Amino acid sequence: MFLYLIDLFGTIVFAISGVLLAGRLKMDPFGVVVLASVTAIGGGTMRDIALGATPVFWITDTTYLWVILATSFLTMLIIRRPKRLSWWVLPVCDAIGLAVFVGIGVDKSMLYQESSLVAIIMGVLTGCGGGIVRDILAREIPMVLRSEVYATACIVGGIFHTTALQMGYDHNTAFLSGVLSTLIIRLGAIRWHLSLPVFAINR
Amino acid sequence: MFLYLIDLFGTIVFAISGVLLAGRLKMDPFGVVVLASVTAIGGGTMRDIALGATPVFWITDTTYLWVILATSFLTMLIIRRPKRLSWWVLPVCDAIGLAVFVGIGVDKSMLYQESSLVAIIMGVLTGCGGGIVRDILAREIPMVLRSEVYATACIVGGIFHTTALQMGYDHNTAFLSGVLSTLIIRLGAIRWHLSLPVFAINR
Amino acid sequence: MFLYLIDLFGTIVFAISGVLLAGRLKMDPFGVVVLASVTAIGGGTMRDIALGATPVFWITDTTYLWVILATSFLTMLIIRRPKRLSWWVLPVCDAIGLAVFVGIGVDKSMLYQESSLVAIIMGVLTGCGGGIVRDILAREIPMVLRSEVYATACIVGGIFHTTALQMGYDHNTAFLSGVLSTLIIRLGAIRWHLSLPVFAINR
Repeated sequence: MFLYLIDLFGTIVFAISGVLLAGRLKMDPFGVVVLASVTAIGGGTMRDIALGATPVFWITDTTYLWVILATSFLTMLIIRRPKRLSWWVLPVCDAIGLAVFVGIGVDKSMLYQESSLVAIIMGVLTGCGGGIVRDILAREIPMVLRSEVYATACIVGGIFHTTALQMGYDHNTAFLSGVLSTLIIRLGAIRWHLSLPVFAINR
Repeated sequence: MFLYLIDLFGTIVFAISGVLLAGRLKMDPFGVVVLASVTAIGGGTMRDIALGATPVFWITDTTYLWVILATSFLTMLIIRRPKRLSWWVLPVCDAIGLAVFVGIGVDKSMLYQESSLVAIIMGVLTGCGGGIVRDILAREIPMVLRSEVYATACIVGGIFHTTALQMGYDHNTAFLSGVLSTLIIRLGAIRWHLSLPVFAINR
Repeated sequence: MFLYLIDLFGTIVFAISGVLLAGRLKMDPFGVVVLASVTAIGGGTMRDIALGATPVFWITDTTYLWVILATSFLTMLIIRRPKRLSWWVLPVCDAIGLAVFVGIGVDKSMLYQESSLVAIIMGVLTGCGGGIVRDILAREIPMVLRSEVYATACIVGGIFHTTALQMGYDHNTAFLSGVLSTLIIRLGAIRWHLSLPVFAINR
């Protein structure tokens, strides 16, 4: 139950990031809702489709859709009278949502198959996939492919999660260890502006 | 049967819109067929995949593929000797195709699940999804996300359709009410150049 | 078994082409692996999803993933001390991978449905789909849509393959005739810089 609430919290935060990008691109309300939806549920949708877990999760439980709709319209209303948030509020919320999404992706994929490697990929896909599609729709090279310890945090979290499972820890402990490691690494990256070195070929 | 013919009509119109964009981008014949196909069957394909209705519809009934192939090659031949069409012919045909696609999407999703909200989303996806992927392939920010009462017409049509079903009207009446409302709103938008206000954040 | 090795060879070659593009875009190691994966398994993934053959092939057999990971890291290491390859090595390897991917796509789709047209499409999708998604992520108009006898080679190969099957030839002969015709046409196109005429609409 607590997990479900955190999952919805992540959905809200991701939806807001879609709304903000749509606003910078001057989209109409439909575009705003599409970008919010894609960011919030795009990753989980690709995970479910690849696993064959169809109909996808937001068809089975439409709560996610209502939450996204409400978030989109509230954000569009509120943003016109901007009370300044501290700069760190959104990234930190995003990190929490990200960490939980990765954990849920790892978990769900373990219901459908056995490989830890696939589970880690599904975790990363759940966490980062929505943002990638959002950036494609906005015609930008997806940020997570270019820099910052974002996907890397997800990968490490997935490794902790699956390793704990393999070492025989119970489900909750493994989940928590994965989510916390994603979260800590991501918060550290935000705090100290960590980036991986890029791989560049000159031409 | 009549519905099936209208469905194929919509397929043809959408395919033509893909061919025309491919021509402006100077693609080769393969690119033309890909853009035509993506526009015509991309939305329905995403709908079927999300619903778990696989193999997708054009694998079960290959008529759609043959129609797209024929349309692509005929359009490529004919367009070289342009007889001018009145400006409104293509948008009006597009509106008819759009309205029918939305109705079919709502209908099909109701076979696989019960939520009206999901049915509306599947209707919009069937109508607008192909055009969005077409624009991504052409490296443009999808037009339907930016302006004009296009997706909005689909949403309203989907609401009429599902509401009529919930109020106990029979299948055909509900379908017709949905298709007609999409069509009327879309034709009105074309006639009077209606747009929703955009949501813009200045930075 | 030999086929499986060639399939992995194609995976490696396609992964390398993803790594090289990621390097030109100065992506971080995660981005490199994503672009390598998308190029190498993106086409087959879309094929499996459309056919309803889920979980997709790389979930069932994770060898592909390990091969991509190893290829990505080795390429990143090696490319920093570039020994010059002759210009034709990569395109020729790519042509071999392409031809085999098309054959595998045709084959697999015949397990799930009967239409030759769909089988050809699935072959082309398996061969070209990954490169298209790679180019979308890199924010380029997909090269295969624009010029060169690339997709066309796949189409002709698919036609040979399915025609041979329909004429009653055994599975291996049909497979080989398809793969060889794709390969020969593609190599010819590389050697003599063949392109189809583009379809251009002036505006």
